[in-house]
Amino acid sequence: MSLDTLNIGVCGVGTVGLATMDILMRQAEVLEARSGKSMKLVHVGARREHPDHDYGDARVSRDVMALAEDPEIDVLVELIGGTSAAYDLIKRAIQQGKHIVTANKALIAEHGNELIALAEASGVQIRFEAAVAGGIPIIKALRESMAGNEVTEVAGIINGTGNFILTEMSTKGRAFDEVLAEAQSLGYAEADPTFDIDGTDAAHKLVILASLAFGVPLDIESPFKQGIDALTPEDLDYAAEMGYRVKHLGIARQQAAGIEVRVHPTLIPESKQLATVDGVLNAVMVTGSAVGELVLVGPGAGGPATASSVCADIVDIARSPLGSGPALGLPAASLNATALIASDDIASEWYVRLTVADRPGVMSNITQTLADRDISIESLVQKAPLSGQSEVPIVLLTHQTPGSVISEAIEEITGLPDVQSDYALLRVESFEH
Amino acid sequence: MSLDTLNIGVCGVGTVGLATMDILMRQAEVLEARSGKSMKLVHVGARREHPDHDYGDARVSRDVMALAEDPEIDVLVELIGGTSAAYDLIKRAIQQGKHIVTANKALIAEHGNELIALAEASGVQIRFEAAVAGGIPIIKALRESMAGNEVTEVAGIINGTGNFILTEMSTKGRAFDEVLAEAQSLGYAEADPTFDIDGTDAAHKLVILASLAFGVPLDIESPFKQGIDALTPEDLDYAAEMGYRVKHLGIARQQAAGIEVRVHPTLIPESKQLATVDGVLNAVMVTGSAVGELVLVGPGAGGPATASSVCADIVDIARSPLGSGPALGLPAASLNATALIASDDIASEWYVRLTVADRPGVMSNITQTLADRDISIESLVQKAPLSGQSEVPIVLLTHQTPGSVISEAIEEITGLPDVQSDYALLRVESFEH
Repeated sequence: MSLDTLNIGVCGVGTVGLATMDILMRQAEVLEARSGKSMKLVHVGARREHPDHDYGDARVSRDVMALAEDPEIDVLVELIGGTSAAYDLIKRAIQQGKHIVTANKALIAEHGNELIALAEASGVQIRFEAAVAGGIPIIKALRESMAGNEVTEVAGIINGTGNFILTEMSTKGRAFDEVLAEAQSLGYAEADPTFDIDGTDAAHKLVILASLAFGVPLDIESPFKQGIDALTPEDLDYAAEMGYRVKHLGIARQQAAGIEVRVHPTLIPESKQLATVDGVLNAVMVTGSAVGELVLVGPGAGGPATASSVCADIVDIARSPLGSGPALGLPAASLNATALIASDDIASEWYVRLTVADRPGVMSNITQTLADRDISIESLVQKAPLSGQSEVPIVLLTHQTPGSVISEAIEEITGLPDVQSDYALLRVESFEH
Repeated sequence: MSLDTLNIGVCGVGTVGLATMDILMRQAEVLEARSGKSMKLVHVGARREHPDHDYGDARVSRDVMALAEDPEIDVLVELIGGTSAAYDLIKRAIQQGKHIVTANKALIAEHGNELIALAEASGVQIRFEAAVAGGIPIIKALRESMAGNEVTEVAGIINGTGNFILTEMSTKGRAFDEVLAEAQSLGYAEADPTFDIDGTDAAHKLVILASLAFGVPLDIESPFKQGIDALTPEDLDYAAEMGYRVKHLGIARQQAAGIEVRVHPTLIPESKQLATVDGVLNAVMVTGSAVGELVLVGPGAGGPATASSVCADIVDIARSPLGSGPALGLPAASLNATALIASDDIASEWYVRLTVADRPGVMSNITQTLADRDISIESLVQKAPLSGQSEVPIVLLTHQTPGSVISEAIEEITGLPDVQSDYALLRVESFEH
């Protein structure tokens, strides 16, 4: 790296790549004033030709690996996504002494331990603010601002597509499939939205947050994962009537016995800040021993918003390559694996919806089954039958109950006469500390 | 500074000082892992004796200036407050080559330009995350995370005492004086709460935010300032009926003609994130060209929360003394003063409450006066008289109108027959970008 210039290579020319290059070129003067270095886009890796793109004076390579080998590049920005070519590219670039900035949550969640250790050994930085919650500076907050805290919990709405779908379902009573189709036509959801819907994308991000929060290695296997596809507008309505909102949350919590890492639809009290975060917004709540609760809200996706985080990482590296500390807040060798608490062993309150025949004795059988397992009921309401049906929904909230206990109870209850096999079972989190 | 140890001196042993020392002593191990340095509290400046305090192995001086002269200290933490002794202390400590961490908003707002320039010339760092919004990492967000953005607006609830009072008034209909007395008994408000009530404290913080946001020098004279003492529960109610919440906001906005810097009670739509921030919480919304809107919510005061920010600054310095960049995001010499837009010239929507005799012609005179000045009315409602009064309140919202124009109109209206001289006039901000 020259004293005065930081040479940048960008691989990937989608919306985030273009927005990043736009900032680098149009805001060159202020970036130099802020970082003390002239930022120069010298090389672009674009696997396809895009005649309309403006790369300024930068060289263009169709083979992105050419950027890993380019001796002129100080910082390689990886925005191609995926975990194969991006992995090879970043690994090689680190070996060639380049700093790395990436927005690739899957890659960091899956290969971050290896790549970060390699970067440390090579004396270069690897930064990934854009990988979690788009434009929200949650990585920096955890890595730097929480340094004086023992972090006990991170909980966030970290998939904008999922939150858009839930918001539409709950505010307009629309069905899941219909809103998903709209999200795709609006460009919020991918053509294959599986990872947004089944919680995989949120799980990748939560793995990164958990590592930063608790000083544990990245563990792609750790999250319990449940998506939003089984939710019905009725469940969102019933929850709202009881003063809750349903959000798809990633939750990582430090307990005496270990850590919980889980992604699932969750009822949260409408008075919590997270409950008010609607549409494609993301939000992350962090709880620390000193600061208490912090909530950061902002755009979780989109070219310019994500590029904002990419550029912040580049400026950090320009100001001081190793200055903002280890990538995960602690040196790779100081990360300590901690016991993982299985979802079955995690206690919480629960929302249960059952559908039953409207006959004497049904309710008594259900409540007896719960009582047999020491499951205490906080509220129980019989709802009006859905239109065209004779069976009636029963909605109940339990007090604290472990996952395994409530599952067994529901299995037994749905085997009772006059109780349908179809049910909804969702965790309730009040986040009272 | 030794390679392996960072020696810390703390001046001021109030709640923040004690909480800071507690973190430094109890979390020594993790702070060392995070920063790569052993943090050692070597010297405490306590102007009075506190037999119950535990300063570990640190020396104690009654004369805080002794810490500025202590050659062992690498980082001086100033938590004594005020702008005279603290100024002398910090200036001298910088001259002695010490890095500075402070929570002192008044000092930074008033003397920051000089002290920061001196620190730069001396090759030391001055950090003040705790000076604005307590535990919320808003300084770091603006200085580092927004580096790729042109910031166009910062708006925040940055005085917890004021927000507590407004929340109590609006949710419980309580009167200002009564809630203030409670805030004092709860320890939220100082014995002399003037600076919390009249907007001075928020103005100090806003001066710092404006400098970071727009790259302008700190200007203690810049904010237009209006407190919360003239607000009535009725105004908060009327605002709520129209879908607004009244919050005491600091707002700094970049316009083509210059910058607005102002602190005043403001009606904001209840759908905005800031509207949901109640009690002693603080929140800051930042709008940037790339990221769009970010909102950070958290505790704006309290010993441990503020100490969280103090410790983050210390760890930043330990990781890399100059790594996190210039104190205000740009080197002092690169800050550029910009024209200040006077409050009179700032257009906004307005909330107006008048009290009038319930007679024919009154309403017509009022609306004619507004029409004469091209002030367009968005809504106008005549309210029921307050108990025991025969006059009726009239509440109206205007469209965009400059401050000078609405003021003249109100002056003329309150001179009309059958209109009382008493009125309420508040800005409405929708924050639509």
